[in-house]
Amino acid sequence: MTEEAVEGRRKWLSTPVLILAVIVGLVLGVVGARFGFGVATGGNLAAVASERGLSGEQAEAALATFVPPGEHDEYLLFASGGHSGQMHVIGVPSMRLLKTIPVFAPDAWSGYGFGADWTMELLEHGSDPAKNDPLLWGDTHHPALSETDGDYDGRFLYINDRANGRIALVDLRDFKTREIYDIPNLQTSHGGVFATPNTEYVHISAKTPSPLWEPDGFAELDEYEEKFRGMSTFLSVDQDTGHFIADESFQIELPPYNQDLADAGKLASDGYAFINSYNTEMATGGILEGEPPLETGAVAADFDYLHIIDWHKAEQVVAEGKYVEHNGMRVITLDTAIEEGLLHFAPEPRNPHGVDISPDGNYIVVSGKLDPNTTIYSIERIERAIAEQDFEGHDPFGVPILTFDSVVEAQVEVGGGPLHTQFDGDGHAYTSLFVESAVAKWTLGPEAGVSEGDAWELLDKIPVHYNIGHLATSHGDTVGATRDWLVAMNKWSVDRHTPVGTLHPQNFQLIDVSGDEMRLVRDMPIGFGEPHYAQMISVDVLENQVWATYPEVGMDTLTKELSPVATTYEDARIEDNGDVVDVYMAVLRSHFKPDVVRVREGQTVNFHLTNIETAQDATHGFAIPGYNAQASLDPGETLTVTIDADRTGSWGFYCTEFCSALHLEMQGWLLVEPG
Amino acid sequence: MTEEAVEGRRKWLSTPVLILAVIVGLVLGVVGARFGFGVATGGNLAAVASERGLSGEQAEAALATFVPPGEHDEYLLFASGGHSGQMHVIGVPSMRLLKTIPVFAPDAWSGYGFGADWTMELLEHGSDPAKNDPLLWGDTHHPALSETDGDYDGRFLYINDRANGRIALVDLRDFKTREIYDIPNLQTSHGGVFATPNTEYVHISAKTPSPLWEPDGFAELDEYEEKFRGMSTFLSVDQDTGHFIADESFQIELPPYNQDLADAGKLASDGYAFINSYNTEMATGGILEGEPPLETGAVAADFDYLHIIDWHKAEQVVAEGKYVEHNGMRVITLDTAIEEGLLHFAPEPRNPHGVDISPDGNYIVVSGKLDPNTTIYSIERIERAIAEQDFEGHDPFGVPILTFDSVVEAQVEVGGGPLHTQFDGDGHAYTSLFVESAVAKWTLGPEAGVSEGDAWELLDKIPVHYNIGHLATSHGDTVGATRDWLVAMNKWSVDRHTPVGTLHPQNFQLIDVSGDEMRLVRDMPIGFGEPHYAQMISVDVLENQVWATYPEVGMDTLTKELSPVATTYEDARIEDNGDVVDVYMAVLRSHFKPDVVRVREGQTVNFHLTNIETAQDATHGFAIPGYNAQASLDPGETLTVTIDADRTGSWGFYCTEFCSALHLEMQGWLLVEPG
Repeated sequence: MTEEAVEGRRKWLSTPVLILAVIVGLVLGVVGARFGFGVATGGNLAAVASERGLSGEQAEAALATFVPPGEHDEYLLFASGGHSGQMHVIGVPSMRLLKTIPVFAPDAWSGYGFGADWTMELLEHGSDPAKNDPLLWGDTHHPALSETDGDYDGRFLYINDRANGRIALVDLRDFKTREIYDIPNLQTSHGGVFATPNTEYVHISAKTPSPLWEPDGFAELDEYEEKFRGMSTFLSVDQDTGHFIADESFQIELPPYNQDLADAGKLASDGYAFINSYNTEMATGGILEGEPPLETGAVAADFDYLHIIDWHKAEQVVAEGKYVEHNGMRVITLDTAIEEGLLHFAPEPRNPHGVDISPDGNYIVVSGKLDPNTTIYSIERIERAIAEQDFEGHDPFGVPILTFDSVVEAQVEVGGGPLHTQFDGDGHAYTSLFVESAVAKWTLGPEAGVSEGDAWELLDKIPVHYNIGHLATSHGDTVGATRDWLVAMNKWSVDRHTPVGTLHPQNFQLIDVSGDEMRLVRDMPIGFGEPHYAQMISVDVLENQVWATYPEVGMDTLTKELSPVATTYEDARIEDNGDVVDVYMAVLRSHFKPDVVRVREGQTVNFHLTNIETAQDATHGFAIPGYNAQASLDPGETLTVTIDADRTGSWGFYCTEFCSALHLEMQGWLLVEPG
Repeated sequence: MTEEAVEGRRKWLSTPVLILAVIVGLVLGVVGARFGFGVATGGNLAAVASERGLSGEQAEAALATFVPPGEHDEYLLFASGGHSGQMHVIGVPSMRLLKTIPVFAPDAWSGYGFGADWTMELLEHGSDPAKNDPLLWGDTHHPALSETDGDYDGRFLYINDRANGRIALVDLRDFKTREIYDIPNLQTSHGGVFATPNTEYVHISAKTPSPLWEPDGFAELDEYEEKFRGMSTFLSVDQDTGHFIADESFQIELPPYNQDLADAGKLASDGYAFINSYNTEMATGGILEGEPPLETGAVAADFDYLHIIDWHKAEQVVAEGKYVEHNGMRVITLDTAIEEGLLHFAPEPRNPHGVDISPDGNYIVVSGKLDPNTTIYSIERIERAIAEQDFEGHDPFGVPILTFDSVVEAQVEVGGGPLHTQFDGDGHAYTSLFVESAVAKWTLGPEAGVSEGDAWELLDKIPVHYNIGHLATSHGDTVGATRDWLVAMNKWSVDRHTPVGTLHPQNFQLIDVSGDEMRLVRDMPIGFGEPHYAQMISVDVLENQVWATYPEVGMDTLTKELSPVATTYEDARIEDNGDVVDVYMAVLRSHFKPDVVRVREGQTVNFHLTNIETAQDATHGFAIPGYNAQASLDPGETLTVTIDADRTGSWGFYCTEFCSALHLEMQGWLLVEPG
């Protein structure tokens, strides 16, 4: 909504039309209230709205986004949780947090990292011992939903850890994390995450260059250009399970720039990967030594480099054996990448944050965040320039730099601090403006089939509150982008939400983009993480494949197969095998069988738990006081909780999920006798 | 809304009144849409509502609960997070999650249990090493807001850990946990948490009896009656800081029943504490040995015992030295409690879950969950029966049992599975019905000043979805209960929310209780914890004491005083003290000073970080790849992150909070040279 339009609305406050409307409204209000119509009628709504002091716009926003009790949302927004380490699943348009999925950090509610052995093993597996202690947190930044034919297919969700160069797989049948992979030769990652159009690969690149060829990972900063390197990683994906296949994956060595956001080519640009970068100045800071801070040193030059990778060619190069093995990963060296012509650069306005491919695949949109313009490259111009070796030079490492004027199709002045661009199905692009705290709507070129306005034209701008980072439209990263909703992911809320102390929530704002003018319709406080990016998928795509319960009783969460330690109610038993006690326990409303477990101090106890229920939502918990153990069992789930019985006592283990009227009585005894 | 009323509304679907309304509505819709009125008018609202298929009731609900972008809620709901171990802060009526406060479990987003030393120390301090490893989760059940003159004062929030008999203090100036206390002689706790009317004490009682007098905490189940005991704990509170004062606190030994929910007397009943109980049968299960499970054994008798404690008298008894010291706590033994006449029982219908005192303090409401009636005791009758020693017997331990008929004022048939009761300011009570999945509204007695209906009358009932546990009205546990909103805390949602996998969200439902009929107006999915109980406080009470930033730069979160290791920008420095390196670092948009830190492998590094910003919401993070360290610094905050530099490498530490346009460039280097 532009300021002018708001003014336009205000003018009518004093007109006879308004008075008429209110009179009729109030009359209807009385009738409506008296007889309580079964469908929405003007009067009673006007009365309720005015009673709460809602303006017309506010009341319309309420109605446009309300999902009535018992009804479902149209879309799910999968938002990274930032340094919470988790993922957040949000309903659109209601903007209700439906679930937090634990990924890189423990979560006691779901028993993730507590109790259940598989959760411990998963977190352990996801921490390269050479590089880390078992890591118990992450900084999730960029989610990537799996794709088929360039559109989200609702099978798998991938999310990276910016802090430690890791990536995780979430299975969208049960919405649980199935794998964490600590990627060799990456110290950190950032926005370089995407799935190729048929999820052949999931891509992730380095954020901070590191001395990855040095045995102890150490090099001094005066060796930065010589020894530090970035890395582009193509992780091969098992199409049945979504797991990563390390020995079918490969990496491409890159110069020591900060490789930042990335996106996959699609349709016209299928087979290419685009990564932008900053700090091609290779500044390293050093304030106490009189050097400028990185925020100054890294913005000295006018241009950084858009990385253009031909990953089909890279596949061939690897197939031909032109790689070196490094820490268990096949790496195409920078020299080989240059020789084979699979890596080119194009100049881009300095320090961009976002490279986004239009749904038709023709356009590559980059916004230098210190430049009020977005810069649009076309794949046609890029391919021509590569074919004609139309280079304006080479970077210090010999990477050819395509001529800026040859590859740029257009520039659009959108405003202050452009960061990231999303698209709809009607040829529009939406760019977040951090400095201006706004979203700009503009038109793509002729091939994109613009439904209104000319090509490369700024159509509308709407203020957001405050400091927008990324934004997300429905299916906005795919060939199937739709024109319904846009979520602005604002970093600050300042005083916009009810005070909750010194750590303020972030502010997601829902914007209706279905009309000519963008309309702000809802604020959502985010006081439980710092989301960076999100993808929005239609609920229709997911609904037919999500599990409400496990399809068979006794299922292992990780393998999705029947567990060898599952038990029936009849077979529930205790086996004392000397040093180890195996308890095969059936869990149901509202008791455990067995409910009394006697062990001796020093024994190891394996509780093999099976929730034998099949009713959806009949989840049970299993917690042992004093033993730091809390597991959650969904209907049909089997898992093992292993403890060392090193604390004597009579412990009342219990169900942590309020499961029935006699839930409180769902308690048993672990008797640890002094040894 | 009763079924009849719904029918009544539906009837009008086919009447001329409706047709007229719709016609006028649509006409207005055109006008409204065209000219966009500045206030809510009927037509455009009706058009928007019908476009989205909203019924009249649904549209009214949307308007009644919508909090427009940028505006604040009326109330804050502090909900326990169940086995997430945390607290959730929810705005009412918008039902938006404003913040999750980490309490018993780590939270990477706020750096709680990661990085910042004080958070580690707090969690360590909260785990009795004799009883536990450092505990890293909890099962938060019953919050207790601090009170003055029997009403919430917004200073402090207390919350218990059901799994491990602990309690935590949250400071409501910065909404952060300040203390966790592992209470002696309690293995577990449950609902027995409340603040006395002026927060002289915070009460917490045992849930599962334990052999607390046995040196190793172990006893066999055949010694249950002899050796297992419950415990009522009165924790003395420092009025300035909210901290617990152990040596001014005391406990009262109780029989080995499951002491469950509790509430403080107020006004007419000030000085009394009421705790209900179950399993006075002292069943212990033992299915494999042919015993019935606890869910059967614990419901064999028709009555359990309402515990009535005169805590003013208990204070005197302790002052007279009639206690024993046990594990650092002053304990009034069961025998002494009986001798001194400070403990009485009253029969209560079996296995109740909820004992709630009316705002005027006259009535004690108990609901046996297998009895369709609520049972109401009056303090007048209780005091008379005690004075007249009107006992119908004694329990096996000699506790006098008041005569049921003498102390019961009334019974109200509310429906199946009554659990918990809340109140409003107009003499009404609201009882959750687990089995029936409904809320019953009924009237209290004459003293309560009922505004409608006769005394002890069922007025209305509304279905909820599904399996309601507790409920909360605004200021519902206080003398100042108000009649606005009621939140039903439902344990199951089944298929009510958009599918998000096998672990389903809970379902909070907001009910408007301001009118004669209760109206369901909003569902809130809870997919991030399993809240058990909540308290709702007016934002007006909180707003004037909450901090938006720390009042002085350099403040220590825990002590709320200036930190000795705070630094200014000018004084930022590195001190190499041999084995230890102290880094005094200033943190600001958008760099760290110093930004390069060189250490040798094996050194201990203390990063003393000060966020020197004063703008609200200017939070910065501090994370070190490879070191499992993530801290969050609010404006003005000082904290220390200590690491052992045991991993060589060149590590790019960075700010985890998107703080400015150059946030990505807010990165420095930790160079750990091979030693």
